[in-house]
Parts: sequence; structure tokens; C-alpha cells
Amino acid sequence: MIKNAVYAQSGGVTSVINASAYGAITAAMESRKIGRVYAGMNGIKGILNEEMFDITEEERVEIDRIPYTPGAVFGSCRTRVDLESEFERLFKVFEAFDIGFFFYNGGNDSMDTAFKVDSWARKIGFPLRVIGIPKTVDNDLLQTDHCPGYGSAAKFTAISIMEATRDLRSMHTDSTKVFIMESMGRHTGWLAASASLAGLDQFQGPQIILLPEAPFSKERFLSRVEEIIRRDGYCSIVASEALKDDTGNYISTAGSYDAFGNVQLGKIGHYLERLINSELKCKVHVSVPDYLQRSSRHVSSLTDWQEAIDVGAFAVQQALKGQSGKMIAIARTNDRPYLKEYVSVDLSTVANGTKYLPDEFICEDGFYVSEKFISYALPLIQGEAPNLFMHGLPMYESMKKKCVKKRL
Amino acid sequence: MIKNAVYAQSGGVTSVINASAYGAITAAMESRKIGRVYAGMNGIKGILNEEMFDITEEERVEIDRIPYTPGAVFGSCRTRVDLESEFERLFKVFEAFDIGFFFYNGGNDSMDTAFKVDSWARKIGFPLRVIGIPKTVDNDLLQTDHCPGYGSAAKFTAISIMEATRDLRSMHTDSTKVFIMESMGRHTGWLAASASLAGLDQFQGPQIILLPEAPFSKERFLSRVEEIIRRDGYCSIVASEALKDDTGNYISTAGSYDAFGNVQLGKIGHYLERLINSELKCKVHVSVPDYLQRSSRHVSSLTDWQEAIDVGAFAVQQALKGQSGKMIAIARTNDRPYLKEYVSVDLSTVANGTKYLPDEFICEDGFYVSEKFISYALPLIQGEAPNLFMHGLPMYESMKKKCVKKRL
Repeated sequence: MIKNAVYAQSGGVTSVINASAYGAITAAMESRKIGRVYAGMNGIKGILNEEMFDITEEERVEIDRIPYTPGAVFGSCRTRVDLESEFERLFKVFEAFDIGFFFYNGGNDSMDTAFKVDSWARKIGFPLRVIGIPKTVDNDLLQTDHCPGYGSAAKFTAISIMEATRDLRSMHTDSTKVFIMESMGRHTGWLAASASLAGLDQFQGPQIILLPEAPFSKERFLSRVEEIIRRDGYCSIVASEALKDDTGNYISTAGSYDAFGNVQLGKIGHYLERLINSELKCKVHVSVPDYLQRSSRHVSSLTDWQEAIDVGAFAVQQALKGQSGKMIAIARTNDRPYLKEYVSVDLSTVANGTKYLPDEFICEDGFYVSEKFISYALPLIQGEAPNLFMHGLPMYESMKKKCVKKRL
Repeated sequence: MIKNAVYAQSGGVTSVINASAYGAITAAMESRKIGRVYAGMNGIKGILNEEMFDITEEERVEIDRIPYTPGAVFGSCRTRVDLESEFERLFKVFEAFDIGFFFYNGGNDSMDTAFKVDSWARKIGFPLRVIGIPKTVDNDLLQTDHCPGYGSAAKFTAISIMEATRDLRSMHTDSTKVFIMESMGRHTGWLAASASLAGLDQFQGPQIILLPEAPFSKERFLSRVEEIIRRDGYCSIVASEALKDDTGNYISTAGSYDAFGNVQLGKIGHYLERLINSELKCKVHVSVPDYLQRSSRHVSSLTDWQEAIDVGAFAVQQALKGQSGKMIAIARTNDRPYLKEYVSVDLSTVANGTKYLPDEFICEDGFYVSEKFISYALPLIQGEAPNLFMHGLPMYESMKKKCVKKRL
């Protein structure tokens, strides 16, 4: 019996979340066991409101531009579905649109939502297959070697700090002596750590990487910066926005919360700037890439982009095989050469969990990563994902995105 | 009579200053009228201290990597040469190294230095040809249609705001509603204005561009942001770091000065964030690319990169023709198709001057640019400069850079 499918995007975006959308959508469209392929507008919120697009109505040339587009082409959300009334409503929509497949593309909060949707379907005996498609630049999902989106943000981070460190080196003899780049990463240091990949070339890497997994001490930090300036003449630093002191408190917070109740971080770069300014009396430049770090599609990793497409397609394949309540994960089978396979893991084991940078990936003094981390991360930034440039600028999708007619 | 040449880099870097270095150095090496080709280490400061590299001693493969490298490969400086004793010393070095050609690659402060060196040579009757090679992401040099370095920083700015605005659009329904990107530009709005190029595609551009040439009013700004959020649901803003109020005072300064006495700007993004937070009560994200904006060699404009190489080579050609006291300029001869020629202009007419964004490039309400600006800037970001990627990261020069033996 042919059923329809719905795909939606949730949580903070990555530069390749749309590559996963493309993988899932095209795989679903090609399957003779799936009828219409819908996309929820702004995540599960859109499905609840019957705000959905019928992808099968879009022109193929526009669909083919999806993986070249940053952001979330169908819109994202930070909404949790928790209330019984919401689940009842959701399944009424599923019924009205004859949905048999639900693909949710997001991070740990979204995997929790997918898990709950699967549980509800089982509880009420609704024939639905739910598969989570992972994405997060934070790389903090459990059960997967790494997350689609991480490799590209890591590549942007490494290249940006290479460029900025070359800039700093040029200027340091009579101007700026310290450069600080603030890195995203809500709880974990995976993304800040990726700056170490820049260190493969001479003079290019940051000399200090500050990770939330290594408690921050003002005194130790300042003396390290001073020592490096004395040795090299300048100091290039990458600092995680989630830096904590030895009692586990954030060093610097923007003081606001997102819809999931997660604290919104930021401003660590300027905190460190003030510290160095006042204690070491030298000129500091601070870069806060913010959205640029997670949306820089123009410099995405080819490996990451391809894997993002693959996990989307694999999710559909697994659903067609009858699986549900699963998230697609990437299992690494070899480091050099890098080999991996796609597997499915229970959503319940992923939902709301956080994978921290393990101790063996952090160097002893806490100011840098270990060689093991570099072996882990380097394969993920290999290759340059293609771009569609036109008149000097990247070209993105411009689908019609006409909402389906409501049925409830 | 064969004389030696010296080339040096000065002021803030651009992502293509090394392309100009490459153009000048290879043109000088290829000329039979020039002997050794030296590069001053950290600008004129290095020449004063006899800290120079002999480029003719470097391997050709490393020289050929120079235009792929960000920063200033020979180091830059923010040092002015002003004292008589400094000029006396400089010309002693020129004499000791048999220098007949001096190429100085920099912005308006550096053109002032080049002008003074030329004047001193004339005064003491020293046979020296001095040519200034322009570079600045600020695009604020007089007498030239545009400056090498601007097109690439403009391309980075436009692409970054396209990506970030797609990100913001994805998130705005229940999370961040305002995104602010802070743009470099010490006095002028050229670089902030370039964000408008992103607007060529649908939904991608910033809806507001704040320029230092258009006085900032808190009330008008807030009501415009509110109006745009009501209309589009979100507001993407690019703000120049040099924003001023109607009395000409900077809205926000970092409160420090560089070696030329120029005020160091910054923090406008966070100022606007606080303003919007407290008045409009919505979530704001701020990006401060800082060095990333001027050093993002991985996404340089091919047009800009080629012109940067050309002005370097043209400088050598003009010097060989007997010119001195000149800066190379780009004269646009046609807009569509974009055509230009290289010319030389008197250094005295460039030194210390500043070219502001003309009124006709700013739209009437001051919150965006005019169509005329877009016609002006669009040709400058065309094409993508090549990169040398290796193992997922750009590959830069690693010349020996052995200092010459001092002779004084």
C-alpha cells in the first residue's frame, strides 16, 4: 500500500542540512512505495498547522539546487512537541495527508521529538515509520562517529583561522599581537577543536584552543599567552563560546535562553579581549563568525556534503525496509584511509544526550587538542563541495513552495 | 646601468596584497634592467633595519604560491617615516644595496610614506624610482576607480550575508529575528555597501545597510527594523564599524588608537544588539568577521586577484619607463561590459586623502545603497580566484625568507 512521506528540518542549521533534505527527498520521490513527498514548513510546527509543501510539484531544476543552498530551505524551528493535544493534532494531520513516513532532520532536541512521535505512533497503533536524520555543527550527538554539518563548519573554522593567523603574523610587529576567534559549540569543544587542523601547515594554526571540557583559569591562560607572545611575537587563539571555570559555570553568557531553555552563549571573545588588554597591555582583534561558521556553504567539505546526502537517502531506505524509531548514524570502520558505513541506532539512545570531547582528544595542559583528535577530524574536511556560481555569487534554490490545501 | 629593486608591504592586509607582490616581484625578476629583487621585512621598517629578503634566492615553486597566500607574505607595518634621521638612514640602506627602484604596497598612509621617500630622493638627487601600489579593503583611496583588495572583501561580505540571511530566515519563526553583521571600513561605507550585492538573488540580501556617510538616528533605525520585521518576519542588517551620529561622532569605538593615530573602531554590532534587545525585545545574533573579512583568500574575486597582480606588474613597467612619485590606479572605461585600464597618478594627490561613498551611491533614506552603487561594485566581484587545496586545506607559500647580510 502506497503511503505519503513528510520531511522536516529542526534546530540550528548547518551548511549541509539541505544536502540531507535532497538525499531524503529524492530517495523518497524515486521509491514506488512512497506517493507524495511533503516538507513541513518550519519543522514540526508546520506539520501541526498543515503548512506543508508538496515537493513533487516543484521543478526538478529547483530541487537539484537544494544541496547548494545554505540555511534550511523549508525553514527550521526550535519548538518542542510535548502536550498530548499536540500529538493528537499531529496524527490527525498524518491521517488527513495519508502519511506513512516521517523524516526529522535535526540535533539532539529534534531526535527527542522524533522519538516521542515514534512512541505515540506505537501507542495508538498508527502505521508510521519515523527516522531521524542527524545534523549539527556541534558534533555532540551520541551513537554516531560524527554528525553531518560538523565537517563543513570545521573546514570553515580551520581555513578562517589559517587566514586570520597569517593576517595577525603580518601585523604583529607594531600593531595587533593577539587574535581571538570565538567558536560556536553550545556545550562541547568539537568545533573549537577543529581549528587545530589549521596547524598542519607552518605558522598557520592557533597556538591556543580553549575548550569547555578544560576548565578555564585566568592566571594560567594569561601566563600562557604571555609566554607565546614572548616566543612567537603574536598569539592566535580560538575560544569556545561555552568556556567554563573549574566550578562548571560559564565564563561569559549572553544571558538569554532559546525556546528549548538552552542558555544562549556568546561574548567570550570580548571577555578575553578585555582580560588581555588590561593585564598584558597589547592590542587584540576579535572575530565572532557566529552564523557564518555554520552557514558557510561556499566552503563546505565535500566529504561532509556527500555524507549529508547519503544519510538522507539511507534514512528513506531504512524506513522502506520497515525500520522505525531509529536515527541514521555514521560508523567509522577505518581511520587511514578513512572508511565508514551508515547504520541505524535507536532514537531513545540519542534523544537529549550530549557527546563531549573525550579526554584523549585534549592535550595535557588543556590548551590544545591531541594528535588523536587530528586523526579523528582530518578525514571529515576532505574535498571541496561544489558551488553553483553565477555572476560572482552562489546561486540558491528558488522553489515555488506553495502550501498544500489544508484538509482539517 | 642595472640597479636593484626593493618591494615592501604596509598597512592592513587584503586577501590579494600578495597577488600584487607576485606581480611586482616577477615583473622585476624578468626585467634585464633590474638586478636583485629584495623585499623589506615588515614594510619600510625592515628596510630601515636592513632586514630584507633576496627574492631571487627563493625557489620558483614557492614564489608561485605567493598569490594563493593570505596576509602579507613579507610582513606589514603601521610605521610612519617622518624624521630626517630616518630618511638619511633609509637612503644609506638604498645606497648600500644599490637600490634604484622602490615599490611600496599599501593604503593612504603608505602612499604618504612613498611620496615622502620620492621627495627626499629628488631633494638629495638620489637616482630612485618610487611607485606606490594600491591596496585596501576600505576602497577609500583617491584617484582610482577602486582599490585592489576591495573586490575580494566585497565578495566575502556579499556571500557571507547571503548565507547568514538564509540562516536567519530558517530560524526566525520562533527564534532569532535580527541578524547584524559588523563590517570593516575605518571611515567609509564602501565595504558595508558591498553587502547589497547579495540582494541580487531573492530573500538573500540584508534589508538594512548602515553607512558612516548616512548619520545614524536611533529612533529612525528602530522604527525601520520594526517595520521590516512586521513585513518580512526577520531583519538582516549590515553595519559599518565607523557609524556616526548627526554630529559626526562615532556611535561606538573600541577606544584605542593604532600607530598612525587612527582610532580603532569596533563593537557597533553589539551596541545595536543591545539597542534592539531592549527596545524591540527580540532575539538578535551578531557576527563580527573582523580579520576574516579582509583575509578570506579562499573566496577572493578573480577580477580583483587578476587586477592586483596586474597593478604590481604595471608598477614595475612604469618605473622602468622612468616614472617616479606615482601610484598605479585603475581607470574604468566602461561599466557594461566592465572595461578598465591601468594608469599612474601623482602620489601627492593620493597621500592621506580619503574617498567617501558619494551621495549618488546612497539611497534617499540612508538605509541602503542606490542602483548606481550596484552597477559600480558588481563587476569587481566577478569570478572566483583559484585556490591550491591540499588535504582539504589551502596551501600557502613557505619561502625560506633568509635575511640578507647587513652591509651597514
